[in-house]
Amino acid sequence: MTTQQLTAQIKKKNSFLCIGLDVDLTKIPPHLLTQEDPIFAFNKAIIDATHHLCVAYKPNTAFYEAYGLKGWKSLEKTIQYLNTNHPEIFTIADAKRGDIGNTSRMYAKAFLEDLGFDSVTVAPYMGKDSVEPFLEFKDKHTILLALTSNEGAFDFQTKAVDGRELYKQVLETSKSWKNSENLMYVVGATKAAYFADIRKIIPNSFLLVPGVGAQGGDLKEVCKYGMNAAVGLLVNSSRGIIYASNDENFAEAAAEKAKELQQEMAVILNN
Amino acid sequence: MTTQQLTAQIKKKNSFLCIGLDVDLTKIPPHLLTQEDPIFAFNKAIIDATHHLCVAYKPNTAFYEAYGLKGWKSLEKTIQYLNTNHPEIFTIADAKRGDIGNTSRMYAKAFLEDLGFDSVTVAPYMGKDSVEPFLEFKDKHTILLALTSNEGAFDFQTKAVDGRELYKQVLETSKSWKNSENLMYVVGATKAAYFADIRKIIPNSFLLVPGVGAQGGDLKEVCKYGMNAAVGLLVNSSRGIIYASNDENFAEAAAEKAKELQQEMAVILNN
Repeated sequence: MTTQQLTAQIKKKNSFLCIGLDVDLTKIPPHLLTQEDPIFAFNKAIIDATHHLCVAYKPNTAFYEAYGLKGWKSLEKTIQYLNTNHPEIFTIADAKRGDIGNTSRMYAKAFLEDLGFDSVTVAPYMGKDSVEPFLEFKDKHTILLALTSNEGAFDFQTKAVDGRELYKQVLETSKSWKNSENLMYVVGATKAAYFADIRKIIPNSFLLVPGVGAQGGDLKEVCKYGMNAAVGLLVNSSRGIIYASNDENFAEAAAEKAKELQQEMAVILNN
Repeated sequence: MTTQQLTAQIKKKNSFLCIGLDVDLTKIPPHLLTQEDPIFAFNKAIIDATHHLCVAYKPNTAFYEAYGLKGWKSLEKTIQYLNTNHPEIFTIADAKRGDIGNTSRMYAKAFLEDLGFDSVTVAPYMGKDSVEPFLEFKDKHTILLALTSNEGAFDFQTKAVDGRELYKQVLETSKSWKNSENLMYVVGATKAAYFADIRKIIPNSFLLVPGVGAQGGDLKEVCKYGMNAAVGLLVNSSRGIIYASNDENFAEAAAEKAKELQQEMAVILNN
């Protein structure tokens, strides 16, 4: 999917919502546990109930790996279900990978080609040759960790590197990498004031923004400083939506929570 | 496995060799491709031929994920085979993971508990709360990326952060994390001269050292600056050993290459 197509979807749906499919068997409705594949059953119900309200889904691969082979099977079924039934939806493998060149190439192929995700999240610590193999895939996107929404972000990301915070150095340096037009960035919503500075470095890139809601970020603030002419934002919510209820009505409850966010987004988009 | 047990194994075997099980179906002997599980067949043959010459095996998870469900099955069988037949060998899941707290916990459980690896490699970019969940497991080890052996290491890792290179900041900061005694570090052999400075910061920790051989690092130089009283080094070789031949004699050829390195190590250990 191209970023132009993503922006078109955002305008069509009046939404830049991304729903995080972080499925934990201890948190999903107990009645699903008797199903053959409870994780996929949960995801399918959530997708069926919310796909008109969001433009992206983001399974975090940790939650699937935690269940071994069964978990990988559930991840495969989830991405296949999305690509078959909702090809207009942008898919993100939240895998935070990154390795030396030939190894990154294996990860890139696995997520972008074999599984068929539109994008994958990648950690920047190992630099250029660890990221460029992900950037080679046409109309696929590499979402580089810049400023994350957790407390540990202040350990290294915000430390001054040659007089400039490390995350800004990551943004600036990554612009020189081959096929850098395929880059997007993770920027946590818990630091909304930082968005103004970030937009000076990467005015046109899409930003994947976790941390709205459960982690305390404010949607209006993020949009005030982070939005660009192509919208340029995907705001993610995971737990706040998918675990809205763990009764039999869980999918409808998730849709209600998604709709609340979508309607806030519609107001912002139409102002 | 405790680090004391690891040092005892090193002294017993006169070896601090780690063999990287980075299995690529395009590189293994063609006669294995007719087997039901060629990756596991390859690993089993390599392990059977080399286990007396090394103290650790390190499958890089990218190579397994690249083959989807089948690849994960091969990884499971490989670690089970090692834990059943060679429990004295230190096992490393080279996964380079790292995520926000509750998500890192999922990865830690998957690799250290469910799969039963002795250790897992972790990226430091997201800071303390992304790493501490890995450190909670008794007698398990978290191998933090500090200075990697690839070209991109110079993009961020060696940049000055508050007057000190980022990788040194990572070493220093990580010492204050909870259960930091369970930390080891990745330090690439291509920068042997850096080991002296590194040992000033972390005199007692084990270092996992890639980049000897194929990537140009020099074993004697690494040992000169990097070895401590408990040896404190695991030197990894992957391609140089496992792809020594792709004929039917591949396992014997791998053992020969492993033996060359082991004998160099024996000389160093006994000097």
